[in-house]
Amino acid sequence: MSSFEDADTEETVTSLRVTIYHPGQMQNGIFQSIRFYNPEKLPSSEVVKFGRNSTICRYTFQDKQVSRVQFSLQLFKKFDSSVLSFEIKNMSRKTSLLVDSTELGYLNKVELPYRCMVRFGEYQLLVEKEDGESLEFFETLFVMSPRPLLQEHDWPAGKPTPEFCRSSLWCTQSTSLSASPREMDENEY
Amino acid sequence: MSSFEDADTEETVTSLRVTIYHPGQMQNGIFQSIRFYNPEKLPSSEVVKFGRNSTICRYTFQDKQVSRVQFSLQLFKKFDSSVLSFEIKNMSRKTSLLVDSTELGYLNKVELPYRCMVRFGEYQLLVEKEDGESLEFFETLFVMSPRPLLQEHDWPAGKPTPEFCRSSLWCTQSTSLSASPREMDENEY
Repeated sequence: MSSFEDADTEETVTSLRVTIYHPGQMQNGIFQSIRFYNPEKLPSSEVVKFGRNSTICRYTFQDKQVSRVQFSLQLFKKFDSSVLSFEIKNMSRKTSLLVDSTELGYLNKVELPYRCMVRFGEYQLLVEKEDGESLEFFETLFVMSPRPLLQEHDWPAGKPTPEFCRSSLWCTQSTSLSASPREMDENEY
Repeated sequence: MSSFEDADTEETVTSLRVTIYHPGQMQNGIFQSIRFYNPEKLPSSEVVKFGRNSTICRYTFQDKQVSRVQFSLQLFKKFDSSVLSFEIKNMSRKTSLLVDSTELGYLNKVELPYRCMVRFGEYQLLVEKEDGESLEFFETLFVMSPRPLLQEHDWPAGKPTPEFCRSSLWCTQSTSLSASPREMDENEY
């Protein structure tokens, strides 16, 4: 019997926008199980896993070079803060995870800045956070980028903070983009 | 066909010994689903949950005052370290979690020191870590203490680091132990 007038005041939710790119995304159906442009509301207690195994991971990549669980994201609350923060942990024994210029080995973790570039293998993920009021839920939104998110000279250097494109269209007007992405050593996977 | 001589060299595992006490443990069967004195080997990628809900939690407390998930423990690796560390996160919206003298609200988290007292409601858990070599697995061991782990004058003060008993028998020779534990406000749960 709840009506519009009696309903609880709606809270804003912390949101995470993930713009993703892989050089083989058009040919290989790597992202076929990810619903792009579809905001998804998740409980803030969830440890969100990304990887190849669909029984463990919420977001899967159809790619044998991806680990069963590649990395995880989870929320926490800092002692001095009223908003939620995200932490990313590398769950892959074989592949490093780069968060901007920080290299994470297996089980290393860092807090996600408000805007950062997450990379592993040939995957590029631009992760952007927006604060919300709710402590119960957060929201994810995936966007596929038609072009690389990093300019060629920034990739695969890794160490300096990458100069990724700042256009709202994510590089659609971009300049010197890599046509031939770096060969990865199979053993890195 | 693996023989003793060909088997991989056995690695030591990080272990977590949890000595637990609740004033109603003998009457109420609160800990009936926990197998005491039974070392359990778990993958280091697991987020170990403690609470009332047995479908979500690995270790459950049969007590309506406990949250569905009360807290979680997980392993991570510091950048400058070769050993695994533990982090504890309060997953209860209603009850604070005390780690020694640090009070954790919902989704607050801290790294576990090598030896600490974890408390919520009337539960007392002495948590002791021992380092191991393996990055793949860790081990838990639960011990039930017949008596409180904190001396009465340290409980429920909370703020100073508690002077818990240092005997290997965990307070079996203890002195002024509380016969009537503090009444908790129902609303705190």
